[in-house]
Amino acid sequence: MPKYPGEKTELETASTPNMDSLSKTSICGFSLPAGYGITPGSAPGHLSLFGYDPMETYIGRGVLEALGVELNVEPGDVAARGNLCTVDDAGIITDRRAGRISTEENARRCRLLDGKTFDGIKVIVKPVKDHRLAVILRGEGLDSSVTDTDPQKTGVETLESKAHTGKAEATSRVINKFLHQARDILKGHEPANMLLLRGFSSLPTLPTMQEIYKLTPAAIAGYPMYRGLAKLAGMDILSTGPDISDEINTLRQSYRDYDFFFLHIKGADSAGEDGDFNRKVAVIEEVDRFIPEILKLEPDVFIVAGDHSTPAALKSHSWHPVPLMLYSKYCRPDNVATFSESACTLGALGTIPATGIMPLAMANAFKLNKYGA
Amino acid sequence: MPKYPGEKTELETASTPNMDSLSKTSICGFSLPAGYGITPGSAPGHLSLFGYDPMETYIGRGVLEALGVELNVEPGDVAARGNLCTVDDAGIITDRRAGRISTEENARRCRLLDGKTFDGIKVIVKPVKDHRLAVILRGEGLDSSVTDTDPQKTGVETLESKAHTGKAEATSRVINKFLHQARDILKGHEPANMLLLRGFSSLPTLPTMQEIYKLTPAAIAGYPMYRGLAKLAGMDILSTGPDISDEINTLRQSYRDYDFFFLHIKGADSAGEDGDFNRKVAVIEEVDRFIPEILKLEPDVFIVAGDHSTPAALKSHSWHPVPLMLYSKYCRPDNVATFSESACTLGALGTIPATGIMPLAMANAFKLNKYGA
Repeated sequence: MPKYPGEKTELETASTPNMDSLSKTSICGFSLPAGYGITPGSAPGHLSLFGYDPMETYIGRGVLEALGVELNVEPGDVAARGNLCTVDDAGIITDRRAGRISTEENARRCRLLDGKTFDGIKVIVKPVKDHRLAVILRGEGLDSSVTDTDPQKTGVETLESKAHTGKAEATSRVINKFLHQARDILKGHEPANMLLLRGFSSLPTLPTMQEIYKLTPAAIAGYPMYRGLAKLAGMDILSTGPDISDEINTLRQSYRDYDFFFLHIKGADSAGEDGDFNRKVAVIEEVDRFIPEILKLEPDVFIVAGDHSTPAALKSHSWHPVPLMLYSKYCRPDNVATFSESACTLGALGTIPATGIMPLAMANAFKLNKYGA
Repeated sequence: MPKYPGEKTELETASTPNMDSLSKTSICGFSLPAGYGITPGSAPGHLSLFGYDPMETYIGRGVLEALGVELNVEPGDVAARGNLCTVDDAGIITDRRAGRISTEENARRCRLLDGKTFDGIKVIVKPVKDHRLAVILRGEGLDSSVTDTDPQKTGVETLESKAHTGKAEATSRVINKFLHQARDILKGHEPANMLLLRGFSSLPTLPTMQEIYKLTPAAIAGYPMYRGLAKLAGMDILSTGPDISDEINTLRQSYRDYDFFFLHIKGADSAGEDGDFNRKVAVIEEVDRFIPEILKLEPDVFIVAGDHSTPAALKSHSWHPVPLMLYSKYCRPDNVATFSESACTLGALGTIPATGIMPLAMANAFKLNKYGA
């Protein structure tokens, strides 16, 4: 959200009468996802919103990708993210993304590879989107300390996976056996005739939000990765459609079944990543139009927050603190009357670590006991 | 910077058109050097600015004094700061500062004492300023857990150094042998006929700014102690003159050779220590006149900060948070239009730990990668 002199941010530019109105009875400020100057990825950004210290909780990309496509990752599994790719007859990579084939074409190849067993380890292979796929190794004695097989460039062969430790040698052996067989199976299926794996990782053990907060939480999110993160925190993942209106409908239908909802809007982040200032403004304005729908449900606590800033000016996530608004009957409103970066600067919350949001939400919902005598 | 009702601080009193102008395109706030209510010395104050946790990093005064006079303190050395003093024939201290003799007179005596060896330990003795000196013990098996020989009052004898632990007994023995010989050597050299040592300490091991930030950092500072602190953080120490204009010239000449500069202004702190409100105002105004010179160099990030407050009203360092201004093209400016305590209160940074300044600087210079997926 960098603002050049005289320029406004996307949130400042957007017409947001409903959020502005809500800000008058809310307490506002900023949240800091991971620390001063730290630009977080979506995983630490969301973990922080859910109350987990993002600097202490590391989740590998393989696990995230698998969770994202609703693959049931179990303790002890090793997960990886992968690409279908193109190799020539000599095994040299000519296209790391196999011409970005369709998800359907991808799924057809995954079915050929899925479910084989090597040294007693089952290998599960599922399509994600376009050329992307998720792989899970399941069985005894696995260890994720192994190297990627993706060299991250073309013109070279795919790599053998190597073990970082003795404990992981059996795992790298299985990966290499699987990939040798995969090459035989995919021969003739050009352009997607091989696959590259990276980000081998296992499930971290997080205490769930049920355990920590005694909540019955649900997630409404259109994109796989956010569903994966929510699942890790113990949320039920609700089926929903691709639009904000679908998400709001899902919220309305499930409202009496849960006491916590994480409702994720992807569009503003995507537009920011694309450097599309106007589209980001439009998404924010669309979100604003749904605010009254949410308030009609009369939530005890309603929070507008983000996992990180994604200024269109930077075309990427950034380190800037994220505007934050918390409404409850007991929030002690400040003098902020507009939901924007400039206005939030004068908010009573100040800049708080994002991990402080869940405790504040719980307190405002009268779900926390007094600490100490 | 305490301000009685209706009164202005030094910074609020000073005419600072250049800093005020810069504040409009900067993000402002305060930094807290060591914690709420904690008045830091210059060492923790600077360590904090350089990104080191000042509560976890302790640097003894002996080491600081030695570094301050460009003495090369090596790992394993034990350093102390000392005073030349006056003792009578019975060995009773009559003046702890030897009549504040000149640095030249001091140097003459240090030369008599410097370079002797006791039990295989070499003792290096160098003058600092007036009656002050620095002592380094160098050799195998040293340990700085020993007591001062300075009783901090007159009318008593100098103290024997005692070991706090068994490991430090050899060290205290060397110190006492050295001081017994020193008394013999300095006999007849009144008023400086003995010395008092305190603050025995060894070099902490800090990861350097090169290691932490991959920077090539340089320090421009007129006073020895700040050069010493900068050296500890891994900065190159640039030769410069006594005036602000000298420092700016040094900055200009070296600007292409480094990607980080610490430029230290001593005058405002000294004036504050002296309780000289008007002189402090004048120093701030002088600094302000050089701001355009610095901006002409087009730094990606430019920060105005202090290691602590030194209000003339208190004639000492204080616990008050220190006004902070960070300029970069991507800082997301707030509504602050004057660089002063009152105005910074409304800055978007709020009050941040001073250890957050370096990560913010790095982020604004695009020198940090994203954290997590």
